Amino acid sequence: MRQRFKPWAKDKLLSHPEISPVNPAEWKGRWSEYFGNDGPIHLEAGTGKGRFITGMGIQNPEVNYLGMEIYDSILVTALDRIKESGISNVRIIRENAEKLSDFFEEGELDRIYLNFSDPWPKSKHEKRRLTSEFFLAQYEKVLNGKGEIHFKTDNQGLFEYSLHSMSKYGMTLKNVSLDLHKSSFENNVMTEYEEKFSEKGFRIYRLEAEFK
Amino acid sequence: MRQRFKPWAKDKLLSHPEISPVNPAEWKGRWSEYFGNDGPIHLEAGTGKGRFITGMGIQNPEVNYLGMEIYDSILVTALDRIKESGISNVRIIRENAEKLSDFFEEGELDRIYLNFSDPWPKSKHEKRRLTSEFFLAQYEKVLNGKGEIHFKTDNQGLFEYSLHSMSKYGMTLKNVSLDLHKSSFENNVMTEYEEKFSEKGFRIYRLEAEFK
Repeated sequence: MRQRFKPWAKDKLLSHPEISPVNPAEWKGRWSEYFGNDGPIHLEAGTGKGRFITGMGIQNPEVNYLGMEIYDSILVTALDRIKESGISNVRIIRENAEKLSDFFEEGELDRIYLNFSDPWPKSKHEKRRLTSEFFLAQYEKVLNGKGEIHFKTDNQGLFEYSLHSMSKYGMTLKNVSLDLHKSSFENNVMTEYEEKFSEKGFRIYRLEAEFK
Repeated sequence: MRQRFKPWAKDKLLSHPEISPVNPAEWKGRWSEYFGNDGPIHLEAGTGKGRFITGMGIQNPEVNYLGMEIYDSILVTALDRIKESGISNVRIIRENAEKLSDFFEEGELDRIYLNFSDPWPKSKHEKRRLTSEFFLAQYEKVLNGKGEIHFKTDNQGLFEYSLHSMSKYGMTLKNVSLDLHKSSFENNVMTEYEEKFSEKGFRIYRLEAEFK
C-alpha cells in the first residue's frame, strides 16, 4: 500500500486511547472488558486504512473488531473512519501480528481476518507471509477451539502457497472461492485495495480455515 | 465425455488381454509381475480415451501406467492408442475406481491421477465425486506411504470442493496451480478435454496431494 509519511500520525493515535489503546498488552485477557461486552472478538491482521473492519463493524454490531496495523501513517485514516462512524465495536492496535501472544490470551479470539496481505514472493521471505507456518502457529494459540481464519487476496501465488501451508499445518479449508466476486458469497465487505483490483478484472480468492 | 455406443468394444478389449487383462482382480498384489518389472505403478482413474496415460507412458518409460475406465466404448480408443504406440508400460482396466481394494493390495500404487473427473455438481451426488471422502479412503488404502494424488480439472466448483475435502481428510496439498497453462509446471501432458477447454480460455486447476 502506498503511504505518505505523516509525522503527526503517532501522536494523534496516542491521543485517542478510547479507539487505539496506548498499551494494548495491558488488555491481554481482558479485551471483553475493554469492549464492555462478551461478544466475539475478531481481529484483522494488517488492517490498513480500516475500511474493511469499519464496514464489518457496521454490518455486525454484535461482534467486536480489532484492527492491527504497524504503520501509523496508514492507521490514522482508520482512526478517522471509526470516529466518524461513531461505532463502539471497532478498535485498533498499533502493532503487527508477529507476537499475538503478547496481546491475547490463549483462545481469546474468535476469528482472524487476513485481507490482501503482502505476498512476499521471494522464497527467502516465506516466513513473513501472514499464512506461513510461523504465523499459523501464532493464530492457533490465540484463537479459541472453533476459531477461524478468513483469508482473501488477489495474489494467485500467495493463495496457492497458503493452500499448501494451511493444509500442511493440518487445517481444514472451507468455503473456498476461486472467484469471489462471481460467487454466491453474500455480504462481502470490500477493502479499498479489493475494489480497485477487482474493477480491473482481477480475481479475488477467498477461503476460511480452521485448526483441527 | 460424449460417447458413441460401440457394441463390439467389449469383445475387442477382451481379445487383448496383453493390454487389458480380462480379470484384473487376479493381478491384485502382482502388478509388478504383470508389467514384468519393479518400476512404480501409477493409476489414472477415469482414463477415457487414454491420451494422457499414453503420453505419460512415452514420456516416462521407467513408470508403469494403468488406466481405469468403465465405458468400453471409450476405452477401446485407448486400446488402439496403446497398440499403435507400441509401448509396454501402459495398460488398461475395464473397471471403475469404487473398489480399488479389489484390484490392488495395500500400498501397491505409487500415484493416482484424476483428470477432469465428472464434477457431479449436485450435493446429493457428492459421494460420487472422485475427490470425496469415500474415494479418498479408497486411494489411501492402495497408495504406498509416499503415494500422491495428482489432480487437474477445469471445473472451478469441483476444485474448490476438493480443496475442502482433501484438507478435511488431513491431506497436504502441494504444487497447487490455479492457472496451470500460465504456470511454470513443465512436461504437462494434456488430455483431449484439457486441450479443447484451455483453447477456449478456461483455466486449468491442478494440485498434488499426499496423505499424512
